[in-house]
Amino acid sequence: MVGTVFLNRRFVAAARARVSVFDRGLLYGDGLFETLRVYRGEVFALDTHLARLRASAVFLGIPLPRLDWTEIIGALVQRNRLMVRDASVRITLTRGPASPGLVPPRRPHPTVLIVASPLAGNIARAQRRGVRVTLLPLARAADVLAGHKLLNYVPAILGRIAAASRNAFEALYVDERKRLSEGTTSNLFIVRDGHLFTPPAPRGVLPGITRRLVIDLARHERMPVHERTLRVPDLLAASEAFCTSSLIEIVPIVRVDDGAIATATPGPITRLLQRRYRAMVARS
Amino acid sequence: MVGTVFLNRRFVAAARARVSVFDRGLLYGDGLFETLRVYRGEVFALDTHLARLRASAVFLGIPLPRLDWTEIIGALVQRNRLMVRDASVRITLTRGPASPGLVPPRRPHPTVLIVASPLAGNIARAQRRGVRVTLLPLARAADVLAGHKLLNYVPAILGRIAAASRNAFEALYVDERKRLSEGTTSNLFIVRDGHLFTPPAPRGVLPGITRRLVIDLARHERMPVHERTLRVPDLLAASEAFCTSSLIEIVPIVRVDDGAIATATPGPITRLLQRRYRAMVARS
Repeated sequence: MVGTVFLNRRFVAAARARVSVFDRGLLYGDGLFETLRVYRGEVFALDTHLARLRASAVFLGIPLPRLDWTEIIGALVQRNRLMVRDASVRITLTRGPASPGLVPPRRPHPTVLIVASPLAGNIARAQRRGVRVTLLPLARAADVLAGHKLLNYVPAILGRIAAASRNAFEALYVDERKRLSEGTTSNLFIVRDGHLFTPPAPRGVLPGITRRLVIDLARHERMPVHERTLRVPDLLAASEAFCTSSLIEIVPIVRVDDGAIATATPGPITRLLQRRYRAMVARS
Repeated sequence: MVGTVFLNRRFVAAARARVSVFDRGLLYGDGLFETLRVYRGEVFALDTHLARLRASAVFLGIPLPRLDWTEIIGALVQRNRLMVRDASVRITLTRGPASPGLVPPRRPHPTVLIVASPLAGNIARAQRRGVRVTLLPLARAADVLAGHKLLNYVPAILGRIAAASRNAFEALYVDERKRLSEGTTSNLFIVRDGHLFTPPAPRGVLPGITRRLVIDLARHERMPVHERTLRVPDLLAASEAFCTSSLIEIVPIVRVDDGAIATATPGPITRLLQRRYRAMVARS
């Protein structure tokens, strides 16, 4: 279908157009795109699309390479023989390849991909006759998606950038009702009166594997564990708090922005669970 | 940092490991990942991670290739000389390369990428001393992100699959308060008493370029246009409705699931705006 694409300053045969597996677009969904319509060789509203792309690129901190977009897209349309039919052009911009890790490199080498393809489907008929649409519950979709480890990590990337700028190890998501869900790459636990609490998995929380293991370890120590809605005041009033993930295992939270959790030192239950976790790893 | 990766049934030098620019992981964020910890050459909780990956792959409809994961990851750790230090392993699964278009191919050729790298940062110190975290408003993040055309298109892909299975042209997102925001790849307008209504751009809606042009065209025709919260009953009670995007331009909505919009035929204002839009394209 597509014969030639434009990739990083060159026209390349589609079959040979490849990007590094370390491209942040692939690993984290760290990028943007624009879809434009081409009418018999003429691209429509290019400046407006580029303005939106540029504004979003500034928002994400991805430098947009300077290119002669009109000429490149014109050449692409010609090379793919799309001069006499209607076509679409997609511009994809990613933060480019980088070493693994959520926080972006200071000097990214962005990837620019431009693909021109024939317009799919019978749009003229849809425009003439009208169409049927269906309704999709947005909140349910968001909750369902939160349970899967999707490639889209832009919220986590932005969270990590915010955390780094505030000299914090992790950022915890809070909804408009002050409910805590999870961190960018970790689950949250708090301790109060010898009980362990963590936000419930079904709603907006990834069912973390370390989270599950910690719950099991705590129950094995006869510690009551509750999956319950937690709010910011619960965290600030906790006697201990910690976050968990496969990589960091169990990390004590001693401060939330400028507020201290209890005495701002790792608590005894957190340290006990750290020891038990390490012992479990050693046994495995 | 990383010397060798595993990509699609082969070990490949990291510098030469590439995927097609048509990989749906890159174009749409259409994929999943798992991050595992390796303790001195031993990967921890592999079965649990694979079970979660498998469950999410079933959810997305991506077939998970059969591989000897233990052997591959073991070999990868060895080849990258990570036997005597702590490391992380990331498994990335995408729906693989396909022709452009949101609806996935019936027989995908998934991409499997496995990368082993040294553990970054001083995690042991964080575990011992505890850390500071910061709070991140989730709802605001979601709203802010909705204004940018990010690569993450999994919600749109799922919406399009749902639409196709219900024989609908487009799926419209509805929140828990029955508010309509936009379609998977289009903006929404309704007509009532000669006035045009569309959900406001700042909240959860991509500022569509065609949306903006249609608003301007309508105002030029002295038609009052209101950016206002729209709910499902507003849509069902509309005299006309349509969706807009660069590719489809203006497409009349005549049915919402089993409900008809007015007489279930494209209305006069929709048709007028279609003509004006086409005239504008012809002039440009």
